[in-house]
Amino acid sequence: MSEQVRVGVIGTGMMGGDHARNLADGIRGARLTALADADEQRARRLAGEVGVADIYPDGRQLIDSGAVDAVIVAAPDPAHAALVAACLDARLPVLCEKPLAPNAEAARALVARQDALGADLVTVGFMRRFDPGYQALKQRLVEGREGALLMTHSVHRNVEAYPGQDSSATITNSGIHEIDVLPWLSGSPVVGVQWAAGRASSLISERHDPQFMLLRDAAGALHTVELGVHLQYGYDVRCEAVCERATVELPAVPALVEQTPVVLNAGLARQTFYPEDSRARFAAAYRSELAAWIDGIRTGRRHPDAATARDGLRASAVAEALVASMNQGGSPVAVEED
Amino acid sequence: MSEQVRVGVIGTGMMGGDHARNLADGIRGARLTALADADEQRARRLAGEVGVADIYPDGRQLIDSGAVDAVIVAAPDPAHAALVAACLDARLPVLCEKPLAPNAEAARALVARQDALGADLVTVGFMRRFDPGYQALKQRLVEGREGALLMTHSVHRNVEAYPGQDSSATITNSGIHEIDVLPWLSGSPVVGVQWAAGRASSLISERHDPQFMLLRDAAGALHTVELGVHLQYGYDVRCEAVCERATVELPAVPALVEQTPVVLNAGLARQTFYPEDSRARFAAAYRSELAAWIDGIRTGRRHPDAATARDGLRASAVAEALVASMNQGGSPVAVEED
Amino acid sequence: MSEQVRVGVIGTGMMGGDHARNLADGIRGARLTALADADEQRARRLAGEVGVADIYPDGRQLIDSGAVDAVIVAAPDPAHAALVAACLDARLPVLCEKPLAPNAEAARALVARQDALGADLVTVGFMRRFDPGYQALKQRLVEGREGALLMTHSVHRNVEAYPGQDSSATITNSGIHEIDVLPWLSGSPVVGVQWAAGRASSLISERHDPQFMLLRDAAGALHTVELGVHLQYGYDVRCEAVCERATVELPAVPALVEQTPVVLNAGLARQTFYPEDSRARFAAAYRSELAAWIDGIRTGRRHPDAATARDGLRASAVAEALVASMNQGGSPVAVEED
Amino acid sequence: MSEQVRVGVIGTGMMGGDHARNLADGIRGARLTALADADEQRARRLAGEVGVADIYPDGRQLIDSGAVDAVIVAAPDPAHAALVAACLDARLPVLCEKPLAPNAEAARALVARQDALGADLVTVGFMRRFDPGYQALKQRLVEGREGALLMTHSVHRNVEAYPGQDSSATITNSGIHEIDVLPWLSGSPVVGVQWAAGRASSLISERHDPQFMLLRDAAGALHTVELGVHLQYGYDVRCEAVCERATVELPAVPALVEQTPVVLNAGLARQTFYPEDSRARFAAAYRSELAAWIDGIRTGRRHPDAATARDGLRASAVAEALVASMNQGGSPVAVEED
Repeated sequence: MSEQVRVGVIGTGMMGGDHARNLADGIRGARLTALADADEQRARRLAGEVGVADIYPDGRQLIDSGAVDAVIVAAPDPAHAALVAACLDARLPVLCEKPLAPNAEAARALVARQDALGADLVTVGFMRRFDPGYQALKQRLVEGREGALLMTHSVHRNVEAYPGQDSSATITNSGIHEIDVLPWLSGSPVVGVQWAAGRASSLISERHDPQFMLLRDAAGALHTVELGVHLQYGYDVRCEAVCERATVELPAVPALVEQTPVVLNAGLARQTFYPEDSRARFAAAYRSELAAWIDGIRTGRRHPDAATARDGLRASAVAEALVASMNQGGSPVAVEED
Repeated sequence: MSEQVRVGVIGTGMMGGDHARNLADGIRGARLTALADADEQRARRLAGEVGVADIYPDGRQLIDSGAVDAVIVAAPDPAHAALVAACLDARLPVLCEKPLAPNAEAARALVARQDALGADLVTVGFMRRFDPGYQALKQRLVEGREGALLMTHSVHRNVEAYPGQDSSATITNSGIHEIDVLPWLSGSPVVGVQWAAGRASSLISERHDPQFMLLRDAAGALHTVELGVHLQYGYDVRCEAVCERATVELPAVPALVEQTPVVLNAGLARQTFYPEDSRARFAAAYRSELAAWIDGIRTGRRHPDAATARDGLRASAVAEALVASMNQGGSPVAVEED
Repeated sequence: MSEQVRVGVIGTGMMGGDHARNLADGIRGARLTALADADEQRARRLAGEVGVADIYPDGRQLIDSGAVDAVIVAAPDPAHAALVAACLDARLPVLCEKPLAPNAEAARALVARQDALGADLVTVGFMRRFDPGYQALKQRLVEGREGALLMTHSVHRNVEAYPGQDSSATITNSGIHEIDVLPWLSGSPVVGVQWAAGRASSLISERHDPQFMLLRDAAGALHTVELGVHLQYGYDVRCEAVCERATVELPAVPALVEQTPVVLNAGLARQTFYPEDSRARFAAAYRSELAAWIDGIRTGRRHPDAATARDGLRASAVAEALVASMNQGGSPVAVEED
Repeated sequence: MSEQVRVGVIGTGMMGGDHARNLADGIRGARLTALADADEQRARRLAGEVGVADIYPDGRQLIDSGAVDAVIVAAPDPAHAALVAACLDARLPVLCEKPLAPNAEAARALVARQDALGADLVTVGFMRRFDPGYQALKQRLVEGREGALLMTHSVHRNVEAYPGQDSSATITNSGIHEIDVLPWLSGSPVVGVQWAAGRASSLISERHDPQFMLLRDAAGALHTVELGVHLQYGYDVRCEAVCERATVELPAVPALVEQTPVVLNAGLARQTFYPEDSRARFAAAYRSELAAWIDGIRTGRRHPDAATARDGLRASAVAEALVASMNQGGSPVAVEED
């Protein structure tokens, strides 16, 4: 394999576009080298944006091109299973957006096909496992100071439903994220389920909304999930893990600081956490500053927020005026013109 | 210039290491190609981590090597001005960690040197301008719906002071961030200042802590800042902008969702904001998932959180059991063994 | 009836004591005139604290004494139904702490007994209906701007279980509050229920903890409730009402300002509410100040926080110094000695 | 003195009305017996509402009537000092709304007059000292675990300014509350002050708004206060106390639970507090329930939220259905009709 993994993206819609842009922005060890889409115009637009020359009208061609070391499948859902199978045949690692397959039977067939190869090539795009919030939540559960996990309560609410879907799509498209991430959190597979719904929203006609699910895992923990795909007010994903001595919450909008996005309810206090220093607090800012600086160098147009030498001078002049005020016991000091 | 900007980092301590790692993780259009540090062992360790072969014992050598298109200066503070001057002489774009120079006079000299070249090569590392929180705050001020900006109130608190510094270092090292970012926020330079302090913490002997500063900008806005470098409890940076009709707050720990980290006080309500969809909420997760997948491919060791085909199958099986429960009017359904 | 309602309290334990103290602190139109308890010493202690002379060893004697116009039943649970029946016979209004009766059959008998009298004498102590939080939540639901109520999610967690009770006591003693308040909130009676539990806390042996209940009301709304009586971390009661266009939350610890303790999730924002003026914000302070002032007059010992004339003078002197500073353009001004 | 303190209220406007209503609602040991106001109609309306027969056209007549044991002065500000002086002459305890006097000189005269009597009769209506939030804040400072108090930061914002006042009224009418409560919090008198203002709101013409004050107390603590009387968005009073090891915040809208309304920033966590049990959480509900029950008895109209015997029966029936579901392993159970 070349030093950098050459990645091809199949599907140049919203999800494929995001993956391509993330690769173009820079992922250590990876290089985006090819795109595939039947919609040639869309593929061409994205190729221009991310600086890729290689475009295929069909995913299988990309897989068989020899020009990629790994494949991202972000094509329409019905195409997923066949494209993943093609990657298996080509022995290419593949990151497949959910769902892996249209149903469990088809998924089982893919697993069998991979097992027959004795390989481990397929990754499914259950990205919540990489959310700093869910990761911090799991981390606390694994540490175990809060006692055993007894229940979890989740809500998953979208602003507007995709049109033309029925009640089961709420489960297989939206609920699938909780279905994956809750046993991942608890470290125990789901062994039994129950579904419920009550009064449905009158703002959407085709399906029960919201729905309610109970999942039971092998360790006995009960997971409750409210799923509402047309609840208007905002995209809202929350989870509370109820342990023997405390609960740990992933709030609606977790904190920016990646190490500490959860809320801990313990010892008569509800606690959110501070970072220890500016590197933790401003990690995103440092990265974004660097990207803006490089972009300015390449394009010859300085980013408007990048501080100039004159900005540095001004800050020094103000700081000196403050020190002068300090030395004078706090009197007002004018800042010298540059 | 080559297709990708070749970047050299001078200084391989904490800040230089962070910049180098960010570059290695991937910044669109950039490639880390050289490091410089008098501490050869430290430089070598970092070089191994970030995959760079070119190491220089001295920053000037790196600048003059011809092997870099741009330079990051993260050397000790006293060396900054001379290294920036060397970059100017070599006509290389330079991102210099604050402070640009030891005092306003030295900063003025650098500005003059750059002006004499008729170039715009220097960027100062005031990274707060790139923090999603400060950016969202500025965005709201620029939009102007809240009326004119009248005052801002900031706090900037560190857990522990660096030893061996005096009261003026609190201003020039820590306060310098507010000194830069507040006029950037208000769009108006600071024209007058005043310093104050009260009872000092007994936990630190060498300096006034906390301190208090008043900055006045040319548009008349008054900016108040509490600076405490030894306040023990956490790294805490906050800012509240008081406008004619509302205030906009950057809270202690802003929200993860980058578009919407501020708090708006308006119309008898205190408002925080929801993302509109999962792409906004889980942007970091998508990127992190991709990085973990690539890393697994390169190292041959799958990331433990990356979902396998079997995970995909399990999720499908649970989803199907839920749909079965739905179709049976909500009765309990066991999940089939894989 | 005398101008003020003469109230007798049966039971002088924790709940009876609280009721008696509330009456002694002052309830418009009421006067606490009698106590009853088999534990004479405890009754006597409380009588001394609240300034009541009339003590009965038995609740029925108090009811038949002719010395009270209304009765509060705060005796042990098993005695409730008989005492309420005695109040009905005596045609006395009665406020009975929950439970009204040991089971539905006994409650039905009391209802029939009252119906036979053609009277409306019994009030059950479901105090959550008077909580500013639940009231504000109901108010918003009644206003209907958020659309129809679809689901509610509640948690009810205690720090420690009462010893010697079984799993059903969690429902009949703790859950009974949600069982009453949720149909009150939705304006629709519960018509069907379902119970669930998962892994139980190892910190308590006698019962399932936590438990989970699903209640369905006649209007179709689904109410989910987690009940945990031994969850260690704090007393935590929350409720979220999911409507078609927004959700309304009663948070764990609602706001002090009585008019506005809920959280509204609507229009991409999470909103908490400000009071309009100091009367709303400081209503409790005004009342408490008044009580402290009166207590100081009666006892001859000024409350340590009641501001003296000298405090008033000091405040005036500081205010005048500030106005002087203003008139001098902001220079420092010393405050004159009193 | 009679068993209950007979209280007269001078002034029947907003503040006098609130005091009168609080007394009528019940303050232990007090009885409202007289009102005074030059506006006879307004006085009569309030008298009817609070059930008082004795009305005087003039505060001095009330003071000299012999019909009151204590006096509340809630007349217009200019009348305060003379009415307090009359109370001193009559040796009556007086609770005087702020300001005690129009200026420090007049306040000094009142203090001297009281000192000459050797009495302690005057209480000034600085009600913030009785706010559960400020009390909890002071309590933590007194306990001292957070280390010495170094600074405080307050904001005090009103929605709309009273018309016809100038910049000094902001200090003497609104700021006076901080001027009193901050030295009360710190336990140390203010010895020096400084005033500042920046750009003024264009929405109000007569005065600087917002203003900024620095107060220095004898122990060295620096208190900063932003005062804005026309800031539109809500009534907002906050205070943060910066100690050596932690900060304690009184947030904009503190928690309902009276024991625990502050926020503690300590040990890398931001902590709010849970009550320990339902008595702490629902104290207001218990009191309000009792008041509603008594009111229903007196008026013959049951409060719509007071739970009837039938409500008690319904709750029992639902609880029994849940226990049945539990005993059947979680199957759905219909609730029997009453």
